[in-house]
Amino acid sequence: MGFPAFQLTAVGRALTPYTQQDGTPIQANQGSQREARIEIYPAYLEALEDLEGFERIWLLSYLDRTTGVKLKVVPYRDTTERGLFSTRAPCRPNPIGLSLVRLLAVDLKRGFLEVCGIDLLNETPILDIKPYIPPFECYPNSRAGWFEHALETECADDRFAYDR
Amino acid sequence: MGFPAFQLTAVGRALTPYTQQDGTPIQANQGSQREARIEIYPAYLEALEDLEGFERIWLLSYLDRTTGVKLKVVPYRDTTERGLFSTRAPCRPNPIGLSLVRLLAVDLKRGFLEVCGIDLLNETPILDIKPYIPPFECYPNSRAGWFEHALETECADDRFAYDR
Repeated sequence: MGFPAFQLTAVGRALTPYTQQDGTPIQANQGSQREARIEIYPAYLEALEDLEGFERIWLLSYLDRTTGVKLKVVPYRDTTERGLFSTRAPCRPNPIGLSLVRLLAVDLKRGFLEVCGIDLLNETPILDIKPYIPPFECYPNSRAGWFEHALETECADDRFAYDR
Repeated sequence: MGFPAFQLTAVGRALTPYTQQDGTPIQANQGSQREARIEIYPAYLEALEDLEGFERIWLLSYLDRTTGVKLKVVPYRDTTERGLFSTRAPCRPNPIGLSLVRLLAVDLKRGFLEVCGIDLLNETPILDIKPYIPPFECYPNSRAGWFEHALETECADDRFAYDR
């Protein structure tokens, strides 16, 4: 049977210090605060206006170097198999990454966003950028299932790597 | 020139009380807390395990009833034109919705998630579900640009509607 399918296009790409999953931060804003650049393609420069007023932004990306889909995974911060949708593991039916990064500077002419706290591999395609708006997304006491007993892991290993 | 393109598939759909943009909440968890159901297709049921421990979940959706792309928009909560990526308006190059909803119940056998505080039109395709994990995404004092002087609007009008 045919489920609805959709075609998406990269609006830019991430230029980061990370070239392999092993050692890359497992989550944006956790662990390393190394700097990275988001390069937005010329066709979309106008859409970057007014972004500089925001301290943090969401990057939606296409995780192009994951393995195929796994519906149960052992998350980096756990030792037990969990349902994929209860984790942030990359081996998803639609491998869309959601990264909350800190925005350091915007170059509107060249389409460069300087950010820190990124968890994306170098050259990961960017699908969308949204502003981080605290009253929309801050629920500090929200119950967090298995994650409430999570390990302190900060970096990935190769368990979801493409070519292991 | 060809930018990279990607094919995504719906893993489910949202069943909500909202059939037109006019009157639909402009953001999940803002305004109406009416209940809705997320129906996940049978192929992905196993991935829902362990989700019930989470109080809130992110829904990534394909906003299939937006207009074409607009790089500058007047947001619902503003009176000035802003760069699209500094807003949550739906008329995006890749119309991926990011909705933070409260999870009320999970029916693993039927693939039903009962949620409240949704901002999606009925039958919107669901692309991904991720757990809401407070230490990953809570930055209550994060500077929020134009939104810091935002209007109190809670519901959409038809400015981004498909057929106006």
